[in-house]
Amino acid sequence: MSFSFEVKKADASGARVGRLTTPHGAVTTPVFMPVGTAASVKALTQEALEELGAEIILGNTYHLYLRPGHELIRKLGGLHRFMAWPRSILTDSGGYQVFSLSELRKITDEGVRFRSHLDGSEHLLTPEKAAEVQLALGSDIAMVLDECIETPAPREAAESALKRTTVWAGRARKHFLEYATRNGELAQWQFGIVQGATFADLRRESARQLLELDFPGYAVGGLAVGEPQALTCEMTGEVAALLPSERPRYLMGVGRPEQLADYVALGIDMMDCVLPTRAARHACLYTSEGRVLIKNARYAQDTQPIDPACSCSVCRRYSRAYLRHLFAAGEITAAILATHHNVHFYLDIMRQIREAIEFGNLAKFSSAMHARYAAGPS
Amino acid sequence: MSFSFEVKKADASGARVGRLTTPHGAVTTPVFMPVGTAASVKALTQEALEELGAEIILGNTYHLYLRPGHELIRKLGGLHRFMAWPRSILTDSGGYQVFSLSELRKITDEGVRFRSHLDGSEHLLTPEKAAEVQLALGSDIAMVLDECIETPAPREAAESALKRTTVWAGRARKHFLEYATRNGELAQWQFGIVQGATFADLRRESARQLLELDFPGYAVGGLAVGEPQALTCEMTGEVAALLPSERPRYLMGVGRPEQLADYVALGIDMMDCVLPTRAARHACLYTSEGRVLIKNARYAQDTQPIDPACSCSVCRRYSRAYLRHLFAAGEITAAILATHHNVHFYLDIMRQIREAIEFGNLAKFSSAMHARYAAGPS
Repeated sequence: MSFSFEVKKADASGARVGRLTTPHGAVTTPVFMPVGTAASVKALTQEALEELGAEIILGNTYHLYLRPGHELIRKLGGLHRFMAWPRSILTDSGGYQVFSLSELRKITDEGVRFRSHLDGSEHLLTPEKAAEVQLALGSDIAMVLDECIETPAPREAAESALKRTTVWAGRARKHFLEYATRNGELAQWQFGIVQGATFADLRRESARQLLELDFPGYAVGGLAVGEPQALTCEMTGEVAALLPSERPRYLMGVGRPEQLADYVALGIDMMDCVLPTRAARHACLYTSEGRVLIKNARYAQDTQPIDPACSCSVCRRYSRAYLRHLFAAGEITAAILATHHNVHFYLDIMRQIREAIEFGNLAKFSSAMHARYAAGPS
Repeated sequence: MSFSFEVKKADASGARVGRLTTPHGAVTTPVFMPVGTAASVKALTQEALEELGAEIILGNTYHLYLRPGHELIRKLGGLHRFMAWPRSILTDSGGYQVFSLSELRKITDEGVRFRSHLDGSEHLLTPEKAAEVQLALGSDIAMVLDECIETPAPREAAESALKRTTVWAGRARKHFLEYATRNGELAQWQFGIVQGATFADLRRESARQLLELDFPGYAVGGLAVGEPQALTCEMTGEVAALLPSERPRYLMGVGRPEQLADYVALGIDMMDCVLPTRAARHACLYTSEGRVLIKNARYAQDTQPIDPACSCSVCRRYSRAYLRHLFAAGEITAAILATHHNVHFYLDIMRQIREAIEFGNLAKFSSAMHARYAAGPS
């Protein structure tokens, strides 16, 4: 049982192909992590995820803490065992969901007090508690609790959140190191999260402060929350340039299909987003030629696969006409097939990105993706 | 391309193991047909159905006629091609759904006039139309339009419906034989449906009248609609005794797990029911020990599979605790996994029934099933 990260190859842009190893297996990076909010990637069984080649998925601490509860999951042997997923898992800290989903949240230096969106019960999430919950879940990679603020944020709010995020990260790190050792080895990797909103100097400041805490990996948080993509890239670049090259870098909550290569070009190794799974349930399919809004009447008699260039099991078998019918009829299989395809598409983009890094043509790949996705519906 | 039915083995009770062959493959009987209402067995992909060993599924003519429309399906190459299901399909006539789902239905000798439950549009379903629609769908086995009445029915209503059902069957047969031949061979098998409510003499009369129309197979309709099971069995037995032993017999819309062997013992070869799929979506799981209502709090920490005696892929991987959590969280995967298990359970019962017939101990199997299912929740 051990953790490691190794950069295998880097190109001129700073993009790199690497290998992240956890006690639950190897993950080839850059990697896109499908989101399994409540211990399930919506509409995909674990068998399907394995068939798709997912090597790591993301679980949401906020959801699992509230239901079924981290103590129950700990008792049943941890999240891997609970959901019968033998490969790697990253859990977030719960912070983002507390800020976006819960009611009556109140932030103090101690932590965030909030009411559950499920039953109104009151809870206090502290940096220590977030670390504890994730240790109970037994994920491979845990995130520290950070303060998330709305965008665009005034400078003072960003400064204040940054300050608190650093203090919280220190407390989380200390607490984690006290409890995360099992038989002399770490049971989990804990990543820090760089904040600083859209202020380059604050982003750099946040990164420098977190570096002192010596995390084995660093995330960039609080981006892709409404700001233009150029700004997302600018901030990500500022941070990535300061992060140690031998440690994994995780850009949280991104992105659209055509954006993935951009972030990789900035030196990002890990990404996650609900987009492929959520869009699928809303009948938005991603293809090599752009988005296909499959409910459109033009597909009613279209016997082509969703994407003629796609090799996924859905495209090998089913037609656009059939998919459109399943959505029109409200069939559960519509979500299953569409999600399967979209997740395949995202994981395939990552394969292509890694190949492009190996061959030194990532920029070309990125331009082609933007061209395809500029034209279609958004 | 040809159709056949062969009885391989029969026991003393009249139960038989047989082989139904259609242009889309062989079906070992007695068979349970999972219901794929709108060209999809809810929550199961066609890959899953193949893995489960389903050799024939049922499609609902009423639903497919309304959406996406039989002409569209015909144009796209028929139902098999449309839904990418290469094995056999039986379609009902649409009659039952017209009577149970549609609005403002009006029955005349011509047919049934009704309004769509989807958009209120007005339609006329005649015996000829029902045959035409099913030929357009290209199912392997088509059913004639019958008049379904409510249970319990007064004798006069049953007599009148029986009379009309016979007249309609004659019209359907004539129309079918005119249009169902392709290159000198039948493109489809058409089955007649015996009615007569719960009156034994009417059931016998209906069977005798339909026999004159020389259908390659016969169904027993209008049963299992609320009457006690003993009465279902009595009526089924009356009819089955009159039907030619060399032709398949189909009891429509049954049944509960513990009832399947009873119907087989009466000489039934084919059955269909929404129960395993619908119950699954409502968190009712069938096991060798009876029903498991998986939302029950007692399963919250239960690390056993749904059914320790089950060999399905869900029981090999997931725990009751996890399934319970997925239902509590409203995850789509709850429906997927539960449906997979329940359909496996039904198809496995049929395998056990066929084996029991081979070994001459069907009655014993039936008693054991009733004992297990008498105790648990219904």
